[in-house]
This record gives sequence, C-alpha cells and structure tokens, in this order.
Amino acid sequence: MRRRLQQAALEVFSERGYDQTTTAQIAAKAGVTERTFFRHFPDKREVLFDGEAALTSALISSIADAPQTLGPWETLLRAFRSVEQLFVENRQFSEPRQKVIAGSPALEERALAKVGSLTVALASALRRRGVADRLANLAARTGMATFSHAVTSWLNDDSRDLGDHLVQAVHELRAMSSSGSEPGP
Amino acid sequence: MRRRLQQAALEVFSERGYDQTTTAQIAAKAGVTERTFFRHFPDKREVLFDGEAALTSALISSIADAPQTLGPWETLLRAFRSVEQLFVENRQFSEPRQKVIAGSPALEERALAKVGSLTVALASALRRRGVADRLANLAARTGMATFSHAVTSWLNDDSRDLGDHLVQAVHELRAMSSSGSEPGP
Repeated sequence: MRRRLQQAALEVFSERGYDQTTTAQIAAKAGVTERTFFRHFPDKREVLFDGEAALTSALISSIADAPQTLGPWETLLRAFRSVEQLFVENRQFSEPRQKVIAGSPALEERALAKVGSLTVALASALRRRGVADRLANLAARTGMATFSHAVTSWLNDDSRDLGDHLVQAVHELRAMSSSGSEPGP
Repeated sequence: MRRRLQQAALEVFSERGYDQTTTAQIAAKAGVTERTFFRHFPDKREVLFDGEAALTSALISSIADAPQTLGPWETLLRAFRSVEQLFVENRQFSEPRQKVIAGSPALEERALAKVGSLTVALASALRRRGVADRLANLAARTGMATFSHAVTSWLNDDSRDLGDHLVQAVHELRAMSSSGSEPGP
C-alpha cells in the first residue's frame, strides 16, 4: 500500500505540480480513502522522503557491525555497499521523485537537510566505534559526498550497478586528491 | 551599517530566540529605524546568510582564473585558500550565528541549502574550465565537504589558521581514502 500511494503521488505531482496536489487527489488516484493515506504518511511531502529512516538505520547497523580492523573510510564504504539493494528497489521512483524535488526550492532544502542529518548520524556511528571526533566528521562528510555522487551517476547511467559507480567514484577521488602536493596558495 | 545590524541581530536572537525576534527589535538594538534595516536586508533570516553571495562569487572567480595546468581538485583548494580572509573577517559572527542556526530546524535546512547551491555553482565553474561532468560533480561535492569540515574544525580551534585546518583535512582525506583497496564487499 505504501508503494501504491507513492506511485500515485508521483503521478499526480507530475500531472498537477507538487504545490497544487492535495492528499485527497493522491488517495483518489490510488483508489483508497484519504484516511488510508494518513495511516501511511503524515503529509504529501513525506511520501517523497519515505525510506530515509530505513536507509539511516541500515547504514548505522552496518557501521556498528563492521570488523574492528576496518578504518573509518572502509567502514563507510562497506555500509554504502550494504544498502545497494534499497536503492535498486526504489529505482523506479527515483527519477520522477528527483524531478518533483528539483521543481520546488522548499523540497530541495528538505532533501539537502535529510542528507545533512544522515551525515551527522554516520559521524556519530563512527565515533561509537572509537573513531576520533575530527576524523569521524571528515569521513562522514566526504564519504556521504562520494556516495551521493555515485547515486547521481547511477541514476543517470544504470548500465552499471550502483556498486560499480561507487568503486569508480572512490578511485577517482583517490586519484584526484593525490594529485598536487599541497592545497594552495 | 550591515555589520552593525548583524551584530545587533545576533544579540537579539540570542536574548529572545530567533522566532520571537522582530526586525523592529533588531533595528532598535542597532539604534536605527526599521526602514534602514530593510535598506540592507530583505528580512531577519537573510541577516544570518549575508556574505554568501560574496563568498560564491569570490570562489567562482578564483576557479575561472586558475592556471589551466591545475586539475579540478587543486583548482578548488586554491579557491578555498583565496577566501580565507572572508572567513577571518566574519569570525566574530560565526559562533553566535552557528548557535542561532542550530536552534532552528528551518534555519538549518536553509544553511544546508546554501551549501548545496554553492556546490552546484562550483561544479559549473569547473565545467566551464573543461572539466568533465562527472569529475566536476565529484570534485565539487567532496571538495566542499572537505572545506566545510575545515571551517568547522577552525571554528572549534582557532589556535591555527583556517588554511592549516584545510591542509590537515586534505592530508587526512588522502591518507584515509588510500587505505584499503576496494570498497567492498
């Protein structure tokens, strides 16, 4: 039912525009009552951000369970690999979802805020493994940036797996950040 | 006058809370009329985000002017070094500003959105130098993540220059991302 409502919402958003869409229209499109809609989602916005909680908790569990021999960067990459299936399952929603979000500055802010809180959660999970504060923050920020880039690349080109895009991004970052000796002046 | 209004705004925000503060109170604290306030800022929120436009245009100019021999990563690091002075000048506002923003989810979303648009602007500037799409996006995202980390570290510890924090973050990222061979399994 959640997926049916998501599918319906994305269709109505695309037809009418996000701002003009009501939860009643989404429910009608899905062939259910508005009351059913509200049993699954608090409002029309959250339909777009469903799955964030599942993603966060899957990443946090993977970080907690990683072998203690792994450093912060490998721990994060292992966690990102572990959630690949979640992205594959939601692949069909990703493109229309991106379009709806790109059409509204408020939704874009919301999407960025979600990435921001996820970054904070990753840093905390690393600290709980004993990673020092500074390094946990740096790893979470740059790791999340690399993963976001891989997801975007994969949405633009799914002839390769998300995991392949991640491996490529990691290699490119390594090559790029090893070039030159010092930053500046 | 802008600085006087910023100073006044931060004082009133700290005393009364951001939501409870009116532009009239900010103007009164600065000893000017509300009309003067509106000649400088469109609303109370923008007082907190003043300087973002100057930062963006300084970074974009630096990227455009960088020697063509520099790769995307060095180009970005050179740009970040070039704006160090802007951060030093605003150092006194940074801490109270961070506190006000941290107290309001809406302001936090706004701050993250600003970082998001800056990242997009950096990627475009790199593309205009002939950097390929994918690489421009990866460099902008990870470069911005590294710089944001350096700024946060510097705000927590200004016994060293922002530039030193940036050099350290770059070294740490390089060491971290070179460890382990593949992101797997």
